[in-house]
Amino acid sequence: MSLIVVGSMAFDAIETPFGKSDKIIGGAATYIAWSASNFTSPIKQLSVVGGDFPKNELRLLEERGVILEGVQIKENEKSFFWSGRYHMDMNTRDTLETHLNVLGTFDPVVPESYQDCEFLMLGNLAPAVQLSVIAQLRERPKLIVMDTMNFWMEIALEELKKVIAEVDVLLVNDSEARELTHEFSLVRAARKIMDMGPKYLIIKKGEHGALLFHDDNVFFAPALPLEDVFDPTGAGDTFAGGFIGHIARTKDISYENMKTAIIFGSAMASFCVEKFGTERLRELTKEDIDQRIIQFQDLVNFDIELV
Amino acid sequence: MSLIVVGSMAFDAIETPFGKSDKIIGGAATYIAWSASNFTSPIKQLSVVGGDFPKNELRLLEERGVILEGVQIKENEKSFFWSGRYHMDMNTRDTLETHLNVLGTFDPVVPESYQDCEFLMLGNLAPAVQLSVIAQLRERPKLIVMDTMNFWMEIALEELKKVIAEVDVLLVNDSEARELTHEFSLVRAARKIMDMGPKYLIIKKGEHGALLFHDDNVFFAPALPLEDVFDPTGAGDTFAGGFIGHIARTKDISYENMKTAIIFGSAMASFCVEKFGTERLRELTKEDIDQRIIQFQDLVNFDIELV
Repeated sequence: MSLIVVGSMAFDAIETPFGKSDKIIGGAATYIAWSASNFTSPIKQLSVVGGDFPKNELRLLEERGVILEGVQIKENEKSFFWSGRYHMDMNTRDTLETHLNVLGTFDPVVPESYQDCEFLMLGNLAPAVQLSVIAQLRERPKLIVMDTMNFWMEIALEELKKVIAEVDVLLVNDSEARELTHEFSLVRAARKIMDMGPKYLIIKKGEHGALLFHDDNVFFAPALPLEDVFDPTGAGDTFAGGFIGHIARTKDISYENMKTAIIFGSAMASFCVEKFGTERLRELTKEDIDQRIIQFQDLVNFDIELV
Repeated sequence: MSLIVVGSMAFDAIETPFGKSDKIIGGAATYIAWSASNFTSPIKQLSVVGGDFPKNELRLLEERGVILEGVQIKENEKSFFWSGRYHMDMNTRDTLETHLNVLGTFDPVVPESYQDCEFLMLGNLAPAVQLSVIAQLRERPKLIVMDTMNFWMEIALEELKKVIAEVDVLLVNDSEARELTHEFSLVRAARKIMDMGPKYLIIKKGEHGALLFHDDNVFFAPALPLEDVFDPTGAGDTFAGGFIGHIARTKDISYENMKTAIIFGSAMASFCVEKFGTERLRELTKEDIDQRIIQFQDLVNFDIELV
């Protein structure tokens, strides 16, 4: 039994008020795999890259227990490329360039060896691609988690709604939750989204943490207050990777365990933003992660005796 | 030994995207007293009102254990009046009218019976008035907590810094912390503010909760995700009232107890925003508050066993 991760593997070029990267390795599935591989293996990757994607990057992922049979390599084409510039608040950004390249025609093929999928993580990608992966799996995974973004709400809303109806856990940020439901209150938005299908909803609020909704329950995971946010790119994907990685490791899809998974996701995201791209994620040890989890415990732990 | 609350007692007129109030009872010290009186008495109020301030309002506060000897009543003058309009996000607002009236010449006189002050809560007010109260107390209180706002940073920065240097706990919101320090990172801002005097700093982030800083420690209290925020006016004062009320009841000024105090503050603020003005605060029972504290526990409680 295994975890499938679907999403882009790509190049990014990032500008922040504090610095500028070269063309570096990015993509939702890349971040998810780097993050989740701290908790579980194998991870069965489903993606597409061009001939320009460094073979060494693929080898490094394989060393982390990531299986690449489902990653199509189109030698004569180019990988997806995105460049963006962050504003001072590091929560908003402008897209400078998007070159879909191989992603424009991506037709995912689920290898036979992936059919034992227990946990499916649909990283941000065209809803039609996400839907195709679900359709190709002969047995429904125990848990399907989906990330998406406002872009698809604007150009492919009907298809997006079809995927949302199929998944167990949806991940969006606060402005996307509002855009999807036309509700300003996140509590009202959450209820509307859960009516669309997902039994669980995670609303990411960047530096303000994340909310997990389920039935009438709500759980809040803070973000770690950081001295500097160096580069927020991939933080949401890294969060998703920590979340699904913990779930896949424990094989426990209860609400209680999802709370824990969100704390792991938040901890991983807090590392991601400390350096450009996936750099920080590549150097983490188990001790680093455990230490950060303790910081999260200290951050929100309080004792109240009601008298 | 007792708690002194300093601040305005006033009238407000409030517009939100969801409704509009008449001229209703407001003022920082009013909210603080209504909130803190759930936890401690007596509360020794230090304020000024005009002849237009309803005598019945004063009587209701006395019934809650609020002593009004330090409240000057200027029968021939008018009470402070503020009106404002909230934007859709309920986090930002425009001031429509400000009539200082009696507040413009407020010269606080600390009654002899207030000299046993153990805890001093300086609500948002002109720094010169806050400073005058501190100076009149013969013995330094065990804990001085100060609330302020950006307005004073813009017109009375030097006096404001003098008060800040004298207090133990400063309360500001996130944008004020940034304005005061010219630091965008709240962690950096917090360090700069603690260098200005206060050993403890609380940064309020509205719907995104509150942070408590002390030395190298940080604690985060979430805000309760609410279906509707009806009127945020006075939420910060109500938070301060819950905070100082709990401290005054327990007489424990440790960092650990301040965490608990912040949860009580957050719980009280979550009630405040449910109705216009102080309305919701007037009808609360101990059961309501205990119930909400349990909601806060459920909101952030998680178990992680590091394996």
